[in-house]
Amino acid sequence: MGILTVERKLLEKNDIVAQELRGLFTSSGMFVLNMVSSPGSGKTSLVEATIKALQRRVRIGVIEGDVQTDLDARRIDALNVPVVQIVTHGACHLEAPLVRDAYRQLADAKLDILIIENVGNLVCPAAYDLGESLKVVVASTTEGDDKPLKYPAMFRHARVLIINKVDLIPYVQCSLETLRANALAINPSLVIFETSCTTSQGITAWCDWIVSEAASHATVG
Amino acid sequence: MGILTVERKLLEKNDIVAQELRGLFTSSGMFVLNMVSSPGSGKTSLVEATIKALQRRVRIGVIEGDVQTDLDARRIDALNVPVVQIVTHGACHLEAPLVRDAYRQLADAKLDILIIENVGNLVCPAAYDLGESLKVVVASTTEGDDKPLKYPAMFRHARVLIINKVDLIPYVQCSLETLRANALAINPSLVIFETSCTTSQGITAWCDWIVSEAASHATVG
Repeated sequence: MGILTVERKLLEKNDIVAQELRGLFTSSGMFVLNMVSSPGSGKTSLVEATIKALQRRVRIGVIEGDVQTDLDARRIDALNVPVVQIVTHGACHLEAPLVRDAYRQLADAKLDILIIENVGNLVCPAAYDLGESLKVVVASTTEGDDKPLKYPAMFRHARVLIINKVDLIPYVQCSLETLRANALAINPSLVIFETSCTTSQGITAWCDWIVSEAASHATVG
Repeated sequence: MGILTVERKLLEKNDIVAQELRGLFTSSGMFVLNMVSSPGSGKTSLVEATIKALQRRVRIGVIEGDVQTDLDARRIDALNVPVVQIVTHGACHLEAPLVRDAYRQLADAKLDILIIENVGNLVCPAAYDLGESLKVVVASTTEGDDKPLKYPAMFRHARVLIINKVDLIPYVQCSLETLRANALAINPSLVIFETSCTTSQGITAWCDWIVSEAASHATVG
């Protein structure tokens, strides 16, 4: 009982800060994506491709979350957009207070779109609200088509599923049809994109969707 | 402070049961592998290939750990070896008490080798001893070559690294040389195998190594 109480208090504290962040993000008209996935699904490559496609149309910035190293932040910094690296030093997910601290360093940038790249972990980040507008779960074709069934919480909490590395379909055991059906069985309202950062397939459709959603979000906000 | 205390107590309780399990495993002369990786690295396919290669030479059984579903246990059951599925219902790693409960169902099988397939998660399972003889971390070439640097705890705790899906090297951005160097920078004593369950590359070397280690383990035990 003691353990459950502490876990509940941790989540409650996270949720209070997440609501504060959501208010901050909404009042500044910023559209915030919390990108989650397994390690190695290609999240950082997708963020790079998204920045390249959008940085002339909107002000975009990134918060990178990693267990260790600032390798990902350096990749983003090379594209000349504002970026802050959070190193969790072993922790398996980002929490709202860490994101609040990181966001303070970005507040002057007056961003239209903020991408939070979470720690690579298909389990734990599902439980932590970061005040985002929506969660985007990235699943690589190389992970197979059964992951929505085996890790349902992440797919249930996401608004968008990006099926990445579709260029590898000929070489891996993954049916796009089965993957889509499994994901929609868990969450029927998922918006699904199919992308490849190697061939650029699907990147334009994904980026146009972000811009359109960000515009309606700003209007509603 | 209260939270840290609870976490320490959880780990202490796990370690006490893990030591009990280690005693049980050692006294029965059983060699126990705790297989850890990201979701979709091909752990279950590797376990299937390992069983097919070894089941005529040794008595082998499996404990499957998953957040949800018994899909993996059904795959193993089709090979006619003893298997028990642990469903964690959301928890991100296996703990020793769960493994103890599962092992009770396997104790009559008089196994030589037990494979514990952990939840797909490259962060949390690193901290939980399950009484295993050694941890095997599986990294797929599709995850890129930087994962040992970004998720160091798992590579530090492992005795063996299996670089899986080497047949996909021509199609992905991953240098085997860099991946090996990054892994050995974190843990210089890692034993490394390169495998593909599609072409069967490396499976014989890996399985011969298990049999050899299991034999010396039984002698020492």
